[in-house]
Amino acid sequence: MLTYDLTTLSGPVYKRIYELIKRDVETGELTANSKLPSKRAFAKNLGVSVITVENAYGQLVGEGYVYSLPKRGYFVSEMETPKKTRFFSKTPIPSIFPQEAPSADFDFSSNQAEPEHFPFSIWSKLMRETMAFRKHDLLTVPHRFGVDELREAIANHLASFRGMRIDPQQIVVGAGAEYLYGLLIKLLGVDLVYCIENPGYLKIKQIYESAGATCRSAEMDPHGIVVDELKRMNAQVVHISPTHHFPTGITTPVSRRYELLAWANEEEDRFIIEDDYDSEFRLNGRPIPSLQSIDVNEKVVYLNTFSKSLTSTIRISYMALPVRLAKRFYQKLSFYSNAVSTFEQYTLAAFIRRGFFEKHINRMRLHYVKKRAIILKMIEERLPKDRYRIIENDSGLHFLLQLETSLSTKDVIEKLREQKIKIKAISDYDAIAKRNDLRQFIVNYSNLKLEGLEHALDVIRKTIDVQ
Amino acid sequence: MLTYDLTTLSGPVYKRIYELIKRDVETGELTANSKLPSKRAFAKNLGVSVITVENAYGQLVGEGYVYSLPKRGYFVSEMETPKKTRFFSKTPIPSIFPQEAPSADFDFSSNQAEPEHFPFSIWSKLMRETMAFRKHDLLTVPHRFGVDELREAIANHLASFRGMRIDPQQIVVGAGAEYLYGLLIKLLGVDLVYCIENPGYLKIKQIYESAGATCRSAEMDPHGIVVDELKRMNAQVVHISPTHHFPTGITTPVSRRYELLAWANEEEDRFIIEDDYDSEFRLNGRPIPSLQSIDVNEKVVYLNTFSKSLTSTIRISYMALPVRLAKRFYQKLSFYSNAVSTFEQYTLAAFIRRGFFEKHINRMRLHYVKKRAIILKMIEERLPKDRYRIIENDSGLHFLLQLETSLSTKDVIEKLREQKIKIKAISDYDAIAKRNDLRQFIVNYSNLKLEGLEHALDVIRKTIDVQ
Repeated sequence: MLTYDLTTLSGPVYKRIYELIKRDVETGELTANSKLPSKRAFAKNLGVSVITVENAYGQLVGEGYVYSLPKRGYFVSEMETPKKTRFFSKTPIPSIFPQEAPSADFDFSSNQAEPEHFPFSIWSKLMRETMAFRKHDLLTVPHRFGVDELREAIANHLASFRGMRIDPQQIVVGAGAEYLYGLLIKLLGVDLVYCIENPGYLKIKQIYESAGATCRSAEMDPHGIVVDELKRMNAQVVHISPTHHFPTGITTPVSRRYELLAWANEEEDRFIIEDDYDSEFRLNGRPIPSLQSIDVNEKVVYLNTFSKSLTSTIRISYMALPVRLAKRFYQKLSFYSNAVSTFEQYTLAAFIRRGFFEKHINRMRLHYVKKRAIILKMIEERLPKDRYRIIENDSGLHFLLQLETSLSTKDVIEKLREQKIKIKAISDYDAIAKRNDLRQFIVNYSNLKLEGLEHALDVIRKTIDVQ
Repeated sequence: MLTYDLTTLSGPVYKRIYELIKRDVETGELTANSKLPSKRAFAKNLGVSVITVENAYGQLVGEGYVYSLPKRGYFVSEMETPKKTRFFSKTPIPSIFPQEAPSADFDFSSNQAEPEHFPFSIWSKLMRETMAFRKHDLLTVPHRFGVDELREAIANHLASFRGMRIDPQQIVVGAGAEYLYGLLIKLLGVDLVYCIENPGYLKIKQIYESAGATCRSAEMDPHGIVVDELKRMNAQVVHISPTHHFPTGITTPVSRRYELLAWANEEEDRFIIEDDYDSEFRLNGRPIPSLQSIDVNEKVVYLNTFSKSLTSTIRISYMALPVRLAKRFYQKLSFYSNAVSTFEQYTLAAFIRRGFFEKHINRMRLHYVKKRAIILKMIEERLPKDRYRIIENDSGLHFLLQLETSLSTKDVIEKLREQKIKIKAISDYDAIAKRNDLRQFIVNYSNLKLEGLEHALDVIRKTIDVQ
């Protein structure tokens, strides 16, 4: 029977067991495919609980040191070249990174995807097929703009989903939206004045500025970014989300869209970047055509991502350039290799082409409609009618909760934080005024945990009740 | 029996059959899992050769429209939502990209990996395990620097392979070396003077310049980049490959390495970027310590990639920052999300941790030693002794072939190009002198096809024989 002296290490007991077994797997002390003791017997032998051993085995399985066979137990995984010694000493230097804030018990601000909805089985199947049938393609350097098949699949998707007519040659695939912003700055010029919406994602401003560009924040009215503001700021490139603005939820109407296009047409080097980040989740209402589809003067760069519709951790985004910019990109920047793995580009191409993406979006949309209804109902049940107002529009994955209270926005956030509830307000995304009296809070519901919501709403009710 | 009118389309016949079946699979005309006619029967029915049908079926299988079962034949793949119509018309705009040069029959310049050596079966297995056991981790936004496990695996690899002591906290994973160069410019500053080796990869210069930085080319002597050149150019950051310079093959000796470190120590904001791009393939000789490992003043950024050791199409590279730069990165640029898919980061972490990477490198190194010996022997047999000289050092995946001929370098390249042989010379990588009289040609042998080599060498012999 395997025996360890657990006093040689510190930390949680399950972690020590994990570390000791891991070491022995790595050094070859435990040989491949040998059976580990049963959880019960091992726990008894070490004088610990079965749960503790279970946690240790779970982590070992997760990291691939150990595998499990149903009804047979746990076995040591094969290691190709067992290390005789561990070269790397665990902590040669003290922690470089500052302590991250402890995570909240309940988080209204997370915009990640829910893990239980990612289509793992089909993705795994397509990845396997890709590796079985596309070996040569996978190892061939693709077109600088991305794998041809993926660009064709995206063009087809945009045609059927958004009614957009885009040629695959106009599409550039990139490693996340941030990466594409960086390419756009190189393409359009670092010496131009870029303008973003205020309020808005302040990260976009940071990205423009870290690349050396000037970036200004232009105020919005209820129809979106204000064209006179752009003129006042001498903007040359404006970066907007007209379909569903974050965080206000505003959808820019067609009239304002034409105003924006007219502004862009006034000067040769004015462009609009249309960031359509969550348009797949328009929940009701008739679709508004994208700016790109009503642009006849090659002024709009259309940008979208699979972060919301699939997962942000896969890091695949794309942009559709007007033809003349696609040509300029090819001439000026084609020495850049495409930054996304061919393995995932071919898999995603098959996922879209074979209809799984459309099915996934439809399923997720239905799921979010239901989830939003449940959340709105809970709010209605838990908060007094005269103390809140829901501000939403017909698309996207968040809505606004405006609270009536004598507390300032900042005070509400701080008091909830003390009670381990994380929430953000419009003012957190405001680069200019940071209005403390708006009391408009953001409910990102894509990853909201329904279990804790009733309690969180009760805490909110008590918090805003304070005189 | 399936019947098509092949006259409705143009182009190669196999492509027409492919297009017609593809359309019918997409529209649902051909239902999922239905059996396609046997190659022989279908060929007879269409009045074409069996090879033609085979090519069409092959492409359909490759793209996932059709699957094959051994001894049973070909079947229609499942499409989740059959498209009723094709929205996207094939060629709404004329080609935006210029015609690429026709590929050569024989290429001495390709530096891609050989497809037959990628460890597909183990990679596929690890990817599958990762998706089975790490669902939650895969969908969780990782540390900005990259997945913890991968950074730990890389630190261990560098310790055992290069004798380097690097903490995982110092490591930043990026979507290819080019992506990391871009981050470094943002980290160190766009207003500094960057210096690269001449000759060298001109692409590096393009990347610095496209990001808005000043980049100068400094001459080398037989020991590597010349320190006085750096001073003359007011360089602040120097980007070098001291272990195995491309294209000269020079390995910078320890004495010059200390000179470079001394230069960097003279000013606060001087740094060295050590690009160790193919150090895994040092073939003989004792290893020279990396600049990073003899740097005691936090002046060296160490950069490496899996492009040579695995495949460039997976787009994973990493850099090890000195502690103070890692801190600066975290403070200044941590709003950037990590740009590499977690799916591939966890898979690669398991690949390294479980010893498959080390085994793969060892196998590839052995393969390259043999391949190089065969190539050198063929050259010896085919070229007259007094007409060539091999210039190589003990590492890396290329060597130089210096030819004795009355023709200039440019003439040799042009005459070989006319005979469909592609080769590059040192002068192709020279930003300054472009010396036409050196006649030093580059033999990249990682992807060289041995089958055509004898013929290519005969052509070279005849070409240089011309008076």
